[in-house]
Amino acid sequence: MTRIQYQECIDACMKCMDACNYSYVSSLKEYDLAALRETIQLDRECADMCSFAIQAMTRQSPFVVEILRLCADICERCADASSRHEHIHCQKCIDACRSAAMACRLVSGAVEVYA
Amino acid sequence: MTRIQYQECIDACMKCMDACNYSYVSSLKEYDLAALRETIQLDRECADMCSFAIQAMTRQSPFVVEILRLCADICERCADASSRHEHIHCQKCIDACRSAAMACRLVSGAVEVYA
Amino acid sequence: MTRIQYQECIDACMKCMDACNYSYVSSLKEYDLAALRETIQLDRECADMCSFAIQAMTRQSPFVVEILRLCADICERCADASSRHEHIHCQKCIDACRSAAMACRLVSGAVEVYA
Amino acid sequence: MTRIQYQECIDACMKCMDACNYSYVSSLKEYDLAALRETIQLDRECADMCSFAIQAMTRQSPFVVEILRLCADICERCADASSRHEHIHCQKCIDACRSAAMACRLVSGAVEVYA
Repeated sequence: MTRIQYQECIDACMKCMDACNYSYVSSLKEYDLAALRETIQLDRECADMCSFAIQAMTRQSPFVVEILRLCADICERCADASSRHEHIHCQKCIDACRSAAMACRLVSGAVEVYA
Repeated sequence: MTRIQYQECIDACMKCMDACNYSYVSSLKEYDLAALRETIQLDRECADMCSFAIQAMTRQSPFVVEILRLCADICERCADASSRHEHIHCQKCIDACRSAAMACRLVSGAVEVYA
Repeated sequence: MTRIQYQECIDACMKCMDACNYSYVSSLKEYDLAALRETIQLDRECADMCSFAIQAMTRQSPFVVEILRLCADICERCADASSRHEHIHCQKCIDACRSAAMACRLVSGAVEVYA
Repeated sequence: MTRIQYQECIDACMKCMDACNYSYVSSLKEYDLAALRETIQLDRECADMCSFAIQAMTRQSPFVVEILRLCADICERCADASSRHEHIHCQKCIDACRSAAMACRLVSGAVEVYA
């Protein structure tokens, strides 16, 4: 795996971390805060995992495959939880999480891409 | 899993992170630095993973089982690499890594303990 | 600064991170969640800063003094915010944050201790 | 400070983290490893600080100004150390660190920009 092959995944995880942290901060300002308990928690989980995965990719960790698989799982869980809410920041989170999950699966070899 | 059940694992990961970071810094001061390339890299991997696992346990992450399994794998790899060196800081690293790996496996349910 | 001199500060920051993350998770389960917006945010800030400071101390960072001063500031702000709430997890947070702040100031040279 | 105003600083810190981690991994493969002890250490310090700063910006930390000032200091120290080496990865590190330092100072208000 070359650095160029990681770049898309790094970018996707970066956008996901950003969207999750934005949704986290935005949720804490919402009136119906109580309905968002689960997504607040998962937003932080997902942001922290993406941050960890980005560091792992840039330092060419020998464990990058396992780390990205775990990252994909957590991104998908965060997307599922966010999809139960109508807030714009939750909706943006879904897209970012799904894109990051797909990028992590591609790089970690769980998804074959045919030309 | 209650907080008390995590406590031993938190302590073991903390000691492992400390031993790995100490070995990392000590390795960078060694005369035969070139022989320690692999352990320097793995010390950092292991310290960062333990730090991430400790945060996950204390914030009661829904993904704690998966995170601790990955942490156990990385601790074991770091212990194996350290076991090829005679330096005292490497030897201390082996014990700390093995203890952390065992604690992570216990808490994540991969090891059954019989009375 | 020897490793032994750091040990108390590492322990204090570890307890603080644990208390903050516990208060964070507990706050998200509270009925009066809306009243706890600020402490939820500061709990995370403080836990992440303590985690960063612990790593810095164990890897003997050349920037440990500056990092610990910032950590002390954040711990104090988190203690202040927590002190406006009666919840047991907030009260425990106050003590842990104040102890960590004091330990960080001692190690970073901002507080002189006379025998 | 709006999200758009942070974006350039987030990008600069991301590039800096990437360059530092790449230089770190590359240094560990160099023949003259012993000459690179200091930059290996500072590369890690800088990468970890940038990662922390990126998280802080995306979660709109109340302490973002203080965090970015510290980040700028560490980036500058890493740039200075890298400038004593001819390796391409060190040279790339200098530019990335200086850009990140400047971006952090701009956002944290230490540098006035006149039109």
